[in-house]
Amino acid sequence: MEVLEQIYEGKAKKVFATDHPDYYLVRYKDDATAFNGEKRGTIKGKGEINNRMSNLLFQYLAKNGVPNHFVEEVSACETLVRRVEIIPLEVVVRNLAAGSMAKRLGLVEGTHLDEPIVEFYYKDDALGDPLVTEDHIRVLHIATPQDVEELRNRALEVNRLLLAQFLQLGVQLVDFKLEFGFAEDGQILLADEISPDTCRFWDIETGEKLDKDRFRRDLGGVEEAYQEMLRRLLTGGAQS
Amino acid sequence: MEVLEQIYEGKAKKVFATDHPDYYLVRYKDDATAFNGEKRGTIKGKGEINNRMSNLLFQYLAKNGVPNHFVEEVSACETLVRRVEIIPLEVVVRNLAAGSMAKRLGLVEGTHLDEPIVEFYYKDDALGDPLVTEDHIRVLHIATPQDVEELRNRALEVNRLLLAQFLQLGVQLVDFKLEFGFAEDGQILLADEISPDTCRFWDIETGEKLDKDRFRRDLGGVEEAYQEMLRRLLTGGAQS
Ligand SMILES: Nc1ncnc2c1ncn2[C@@H]1O[C@H](COP(=O)(O)OP(=O)(O)O)[C@@H](O)[C@H]1O
Ligand SMILES: Nc1ncnc2c1ncn2[C@@H]1O[C@H](COP(=O)(O)OP(=O)(O)O)[C@@H](O)[C@H]1O
Ligand SMILES: [Mg+2]
Ligand SMILES: [Mg+2]
Repeated sequence: MEVLEQIYEGKAKKVFATDHPDYYLVRYKDDATAFNGEKRGTIKGKGEINNRMSNLLFQYLAKNGVPNHFVEEVSACETLVRRVEIIPLEVVVRNLAAGSMAKRLGLVEGTHLDEPIVEFYYKDDALGDPLVTEDHIRVLHIATPQDVEELRNRALEVNRLLLAQFLQLGVQLVDFKLEFGFAEDGQILLADEISPDTCRFWDIETGEKLDKDRFRRDLGGVEEAYQEMLRRLLTGGAQS
Repeated sequence: MEVLEQIYEGKAKKVFATDHPDYYLVRYKDDATAFNGEKRGTIKGKGEINNRMSNLLFQYLAKNGVPNHFVEEVSACETLVRRVEIIPLEVVVRNLAAGSMAKRLGLVEGTHLDEPIVEFYYKDDALGDPLVTEDHIRVLHIATPQDVEELRNRALEVNRLLLAQFLQLGVQLVDFKLEFGFAEDGQILLADEISPDTCRFWDIETGEKLDKDRFRRDLGGVEEAYQEMLRRLLTGGAQS
């Protein structure tokens, strides 16, 4: 497999074409941004950790019936994935209120929700990724109602699987963001990454944050938190 | 009927108890606010116009099968209404993208929507009335999914009726905000007001704004626009 031209450089990853038309190579970076790019920094080792962690989780999800873009890890921070046409929605699942949801709706961080909820944000950096309703998604032709229903169900299934997995590792999965896309055969695949950049992880015993909020909120111990999450995944599970 | 103590003073109206336990008296004010109270002013004659206009529209809607709080106009700016327990949702219907929707989603003001959409905003001044999804409404116990469905259907029915009515008056109904509440018998009633404060009205020929955007955006001719809308309603219809 040969790596060809760079297709896209995002905030956390670079995406390259390969000599296989259906595959991209993703290279994870140590760059970190927050608040729609206003805060910038570097988290040493993040690229490798997020690559490893995403791949472990994508393999676990695939084994449990959630089709996704993972093909093969090709180096410490590079992975071959199925090329998809990304649906421009950030699909967020929340088990507890935290972050923007807690702030917008006046809830104490950590408020338990009766049941997990799914939110959709329109992936548009210039607009600051606004929250959208299913009506907005329909009239803006971002996705069809059937696709939205499918994304919702997939996201909730991922939540059930990840919630159980992380519980075994002593971690409360608070919320997370997913991206999906259409593969060349029209199938919807889970894509992008699943990492401390895109999830909120709270230690079940201590409540300690083990995710990007340590960077966003200048809590210190950022690298250590990312390492700890990978350590738990490697020792605890995600292989079954 | 005797007017008793003031129950609430809002930004545009005062609400009074009466000697009938199921009735409130609403007194419309000339006060105008915008941008969550940041901009303040007075629109001379607005109280009377909004009272007259709301009442004409509530009577038209009642005749056409939309139950609402209107009981009797008791003076130029006072109306007797059924007391309801307001559901803390601003129910917005949009036919064209304008205002906050256009801004948030990067649409040109006036962009036609394939079909009307309904948005729900959580009525909470301190939070700035945030947009909420049906998932938020459910987990925050703001309303049940069945009630949300009911509100959506009622709002779309109001839109069909008002759209037709205003079209006859040479006015494009761009969007509007409704409030609903539970009457003492558990019935959901349309309440609050329907006026140039709560609707966007554009003249069909000239595109001229005939609503509170003249105040919000310092376009001048504010009083005249409110008067013009009432004039059209009085001469053109809303009685059938
Ligand atoms: N399998 C895939 N095929 C095509 N694009 C993908 C795939 N997985 C992720 N992407 C896209 O690649 C980019 C990853 O880079 P990232 O740094 O996360 O970008 P961003 O700054 O937009 O978050 C994102 O735009 C993401 O939507
Ligand atoms: N029939 C009704 N019964 C009880 N409350 C009502 C009724 N109609 C409207 N209201 C409430 O009365 C208040 C009207 O005052 P207004 O100045 O519009 O308030 P606000 O500043 O909250 O918009 C609003 O809070 C509205 O929800
Ligand atoms: Mg990203
Ligand atoms: Mg009001």
